[in-house]
Amino acid sequence: MPLLVVGSVALDSVQTPQASRDDVLGGSAVFFSYAASYFTSVKLVGVVGEDWPAEHTKLLTDRRIDAEGLQVVPGAKTFRWRGKYLPNMNDRETLEVHLNVFGDFDPVLPEEYRRSSFLFLANGSPRVQLKVMDQVVGARLTVADTMDLWIREDHDALMELLGRVDGLVLNDSEAKLLTNDENLVRAGHKVREMGPKFVVIKKGEHGAMFFSEHETYVMPAFPTEDVVDPTGAGDSFAGGMMGYLAEQGNFEPTTLKKALAYGVLVASFNVEDFSLDRMKKIEREDIELRMTQYQRMLSF
Amino acid sequence: MPLLVVGSVALDSVQTPQASRDDVLGGSAVFFSYAASYFTSVKLVGVVGEDWPAEHTKLLTDRRIDAEGLQVVPGAKTFRWRGKYLPNMNDRETLEVHLNVFGDFDPVLPEEYRRSSFLFLANGSPRVQLKVMDQVVGARLTVADTMDLWIREDHDALMELLGRVDGLVLNDSEAKLLTNDENLVRAGHKVREMGPKFVVIKKGEHGAMFFSEHETYVMPAFPTEDVVDPTGAGDSFAGGMMGYLAEQGNFEPTTLKKALAYGVLVASFNVEDFSLDRMKKIEREDIELRMTQYQRMLSF
Repeated sequence: MPLLVVGSVALDSVQTPQASRDDVLGGSAVFFSYAASYFTSVKLVGVVGEDWPAEHTKLLTDRRIDAEGLQVVPGAKTFRWRGKYLPNMNDRETLEVHLNVFGDFDPVLPEEYRRSSFLFLANGSPRVQLKVMDQVVGARLTVADTMDLWIREDHDALMELLGRVDGLVLNDSEAKLLTNDENLVRAGHKVREMGPKFVVIKKGEHGAMFFSEHETYVMPAFPTEDVVDPTGAGDSFAGGMMGYLAEQGNFEPTTLKKALAYGVLVASFNVEDFSLDRMKKIEREDIELRMTQYQRMLSF
Repeated sequence: MPLLVVGSVALDSVQTPQASRDDVLGGSAVFFSYAASYFTSVKLVGVVGEDWPAEHTKLLTDRRIDAEGLQVVPGAKTFRWRGKYLPNMNDRETLEVHLNVFGDFDPVLPEEYRRSSFLFLANGSPRVQLKVMDQVVGARLTVADTMDLWIREDHDALMELLGRVDGLVLNDSEAKLLTNDENLVRAGHKVREMGPKFVVIKKGEHGAMFFSEHETYVMPAFPTEDVVDPTGAGDSFAGGMMGYLAEQGNFEPTTLKKALAYGVLVASFNVEDFSLDRMKKIEREDIELRMTQYQRMLSF
């Protein structure tokens, strides 16, 4: 079933203790859609400036990603982020943010995008996320991501969003911040009580947790020695999850659980190189192979 | 098969953000043996002072714990620890340590203890741990715990210990410290290359990881909202693990994996109250029920 993602498209500069890259392809909607493209076709809505290299768009459209919704604004610059990972590769510092054209992002969806069944609102202002929801009629499943900035600075709009989405994906520190509870199990359910039918807490190297009214579960990260660049791990997780759901065309509890596992696994590939460099080299069968290993790991 | 544990026996004073307890039953060998007693009989070697309440010993011997090896030193005081948990309930500060009689702990094993097949060297000086190994002839499986203090201050003795034990259990920050590697997958294998055939890294609320030459796996913690006091979580984990191995009488890869799961589950009960208060209220069938839930949680 059609999957639509709206979010940031960026040029990232990343420093890790081992290496660094400048102005590489990034952004929440990019990582998400590439990850989802192993499972289903994806429609991407975002905005870039005229400095945006055409080969980046080609990289996306060469997969099952429809970039008709990627608006190019003449005379403007693309969103740029520069960050530095600490030696634990889990914590990072943002060194520079230039929102540029993303600062005025006011997405107007192409007509045919508006009937998407599966909608992911990647990280962005909850006001923009709400505006997107208004345009998508009859979405069967709407899931949003959020971040500390909006929890702190636009709490009211975020609360309105939580009352309208079906699912929310956020990371562990954000869940604690939003609920003022340090216990992630309680925090997950408290977020759920704010509106979403289900909540997923991403724990980075420790995996992900799922919360619905009747279920609480945890999935560990796939153990990997080769964490080269964690940028986009959360977005590729969400892309794997939503991509599988859209492929299956439902979000029954058993489908959701397997979707979470696919999210964990796609993210485990994504962190093995900068930008999309690792994901570019794999196919669905590589994910399936890792799924077999993962399921074997978790059976005893 | 007989399981022997040598370690600390203590009176703990614990502060958490919600509550506190003074002078309650604690110590690595106590948490370990109580946890193991769901699975097998346990022989405990430790030392206390004359301030040690007799009812604490009775609590142990009322289960399958042989306390003949618990030496009471007249005129001396029991090891006391006072600690305070931070709001995340994972990090803690040690406020006071009085080693008292544990400072001169030089265990001499009762004759019949020396033929134990399964040996656990709970947290203590690696020199003492080595002396215990010298006394146990023909142990089929020897597993040790260690801590940052010994990694920092008695590295040589610890290295000798690692060259002799079959398995090592340590927590995530200790594994990073010992290997100077922030990636836990690499760190686990680096510790293994220091000698032990297998290594278990405890990650607190995030579960545990296992490393052998041919296997790397992760098990998440059992998700619980009721973390009342994490003291003894690592020791009860080890007790559940070793108890199951001793019950099964082998340490084949499949047995080890299930043993790790039992360790995770027993620890998940232990943290639900202070001291042994939660573990006192459960039976093997409660653990089996949680095992069923845990296995269901990890299948998809």
